[in-house]
Amino acid sequence: MEKLTNPEADLHKASILLTTHTVRVRYGETDRMGFVYYGAYAAYLEVARVELLRSLGMAYSVLEKRGIWLPVRAFNIRYHRPGHYDDLIEVEVGLCKRPTAKIEFSYRLSARGEVLAEAYTELAFLNAETGTPARCPADLLALIDAAYSKASSG
Amino acid sequence: MEKLTNPEADLHKASILLTTHTVRVRYGETDRMGFVYYGAYAAYLEVARVELLRSLGMAYSVLEKRGIWLPVRAFNIRYHRPGHYDDLIEVEVGLCKRPTAKIEFSYRLSARGEVLAEAYTELAFLNAETGTPARCPADLLALIDAAYSKASSG
Amino acid sequence: MEKLTNPEADLHKASILLTTHTVRVRYGETDRMGFVYYGAYAAYLEVARVELLRSLGMAYSVLEKRGIWLPVRAFNIRYHRPGHYDDLIEVEVGLCKRPTAKIEFSYRLSARGEVLAEAYTELAFLNAETGTPARCPADLLALIDAAYSKASSG
Amino acid sequence: MEKLTNPEADLHKASILLTTHTVRVRYGETDRMGFVYYGAYAAYLEVARVELLRSLGMAYSVLEKRGIWLPVRAFNIRYHRPGHYDDLIEVEVGLCKRPTAKIEFSYRLSARGEVLAEAYTELAFLNAETGTPARCPADLLALIDAAYSKASSG
Repeated sequence: MEKLTNPEADLHKASILLTTHTVRVRYGETDRMGFVYYGAYAAYLEVARVELLRSLGMAYSVLEKRGIWLPVRAFNIRYHRPGHYDDLIEVEVGLCKRPTAKIEFSYRLSARGEVLAEAYTELAFLNAETGTPARCPADLLALIDAAYSKASSG
Repeated sequence: MEKLTNPEADLHKASILLTTHTVRVRYGETDRMGFVYYGAYAAYLEVARVELLRSLGMAYSVLEKRGIWLPVRAFNIRYHRPGHYDDLIEVEVGLCKRPTAKIEFSYRLSARGEVLAEAYTELAFLNAETGTPARCPADLLALIDAAYSKASSG
Repeated sequence: MEKLTNPEADLHKASILLTTHTVRVRYGETDRMGFVYYGAYAAYLEVARVELLRSLGMAYSVLEKRGIWLPVRAFNIRYHRPGHYDDLIEVEVGLCKRPTAKIEFSYRLSARGEVLAEAYTELAFLNAETGTPARCPADLLALIDAAYSKASSG
Repeated sequence: MEKLTNPEADLHKASILLTTHTVRVRYGETDRMGFVYYGAYAAYLEVARVELLRSLGMAYSVLEKRGIWLPVRAFNIRYHRPGHYDDLIEVEVGLCKRPTAKIEFSYRLSARGEVLAEAYTELAFLNAETGTPARCPADLLALIDAAYSKASSG
C-alpha cells in the first residue's frame, strides 16, 4: 500500500471548486458512546460530493444512466471532535483538481462552530458495462471548467 | 490536516500481532453497483479489531464496563477490488505497535483469493466519565506483551 | 403471523396531526437489486416523526436532555413499489392518536407520484435514568392539543 | 393502524421448517440509548432467512444468478427488550408455509436467555429481467418438501 497522503492541508487553497451541504445526524447514525459512529461519515461525504456535482449541472444519477460508475478507490478521514445526534453538520466539499480517470474530493465537516472531521476521497470513472476504467466525460469537464473560470474571476 | 500516512507497507512485517476474522457480506451492505458500499467496510474493520482484542483475552465490552472508550481518530482505506454479496471476507488485522494513549490497527481484506482493500485505523483511549484522554490499561498491555512474546518465540 | 392488514387505507382520516418531510435516497441505502434496501426505511420514518415533533415545538433531542427516551416498540411496513437512488421520498407522517405512555405514528412514503410504502410505528415513553415506563410529558401533550385544535378549526 | 397483533405466539407450531442463526451485535448497530437501533434488526432477519435457505441447499446468491429476486414486501416486528452491544443474538427463523409466489418467514430473536423481538417478513419471487412476479422455483420447493418430510418424520 503506497502512501495515502491527504492533500487537504488547506481545503480552500487545495480546491478548485467548493460547495457546502448540510446533513442532519440521524438517531441510527449514533452509537452507544453517544457519538456519530465513525462509519456513518461515509454517507455524509457521499451526499456532499453528489450535491457538488448536481450544483455543477450533472446529477450523479444521470452519469449512471449514461453507463458511468464512480466507485470510491480511497477514503481517508481524521476525526477531531465527536458529532452528536441532531447536529446539523456542514460538509464543505472541494474538488481537489481537474478530474482525469479519477476524481478527488476534500471535505471539512463542522457543527456548532467546530471542525468535527476532515476527509479525502478518490473515485474512479468506470465503464459500467465493461467494468473497465473510463475518463471523466467531456461535458462534465466542461461544466467544471466553466464553474472554475466563473469562480476564479468572481 | 497533517499527513495521513498508512503504515501497512507490509501488514505482516508491520504488525506485532496478527489475527484473521471472517465476515459474510450482507445484502444491505451492497449498493446498486452490485458492490459492497464503501462505507460498509468500517463495520468489518470494527468487528475484526474487536475479535483481535477478544482473542487476547480482553473483550472491548469489558473495557467499556471499566469506563474506557475507544473512539476512532483516523481511518484510511484503499479499495483494490469490489466486494460482492455473500462473499466471505477474510479480514486480517494487525496491531501496528505497542499501544500508548492510542492504539493502531492495520487490515487487509480478501475474498476469493484476492485482496479487496487495505486499511488503517487509529483509536484513542478515553476516560468515558470525564471525556479526557487515557492510557492503554496495564492489564491490556500485559496481555499484548504476553501474546507478542509468545508469537515471537513461536 | 397470518394476516397483514394494512389499516391505514386513509392516513388522513386516521391521523390527528399530519406533516410531510422529504428525504433523498443515498447511494449506500440502495442494494444490488438497485432498490432501496428494506431496512433503510426505518431511518426515513425516524427522521419524519422527529420532524413532526420538531414542528410542534418539541425537538426529540430536548426530550432526551430531560431524561425521556422513546424506544420503538413495534414497527410494521408494507412495500408497494421499490424506491430508487436519488429519489426524493415524501414521507407523510401522522400522529395516530393522543399519546399516553406510548405514541403511535402512521406513514405513507411516495416518490415520483407513486406510493412506495405504508408504515406504522409504536414508541414508548421511558424514564432514561430508571428504564421504567413514563407518560407523555404534559407540555408535549399541550403542544399536540394546541396543534390539533388549530388543525381542526383550520 | 390500530391493532398490532403478534400472531406468532408459537413460532414452532407456526413454522414448517425452523433453523437458528447467531449474529453478534456490532458497535455501529447500537444507538446513543445504548440499545440496538430498531432499524438494525432488518439485517439480522435477512442473514437468518438466507442461512435457512442455504441450509436447505439453495444459497440466495444462486437464486439471483438464475435471475430470481426476492424483495421484501412486508415486514413486522415487535420489540420486547433492548439488544445490547456484543450480544450474541440467536435468531430462530421459521418458514411459515409452503411458498407460492411469495415466501413468508417468522422470527424470534433472543439473547441472554430472553426474547428481544419477534418478527415476520413476506418476500415475493420476482423475475429479475422483466421485473414481473414469478413463482417459487421447482427445485427450491423440492428442497423444502424434502426437508419438511424429514423434519416431520424425524
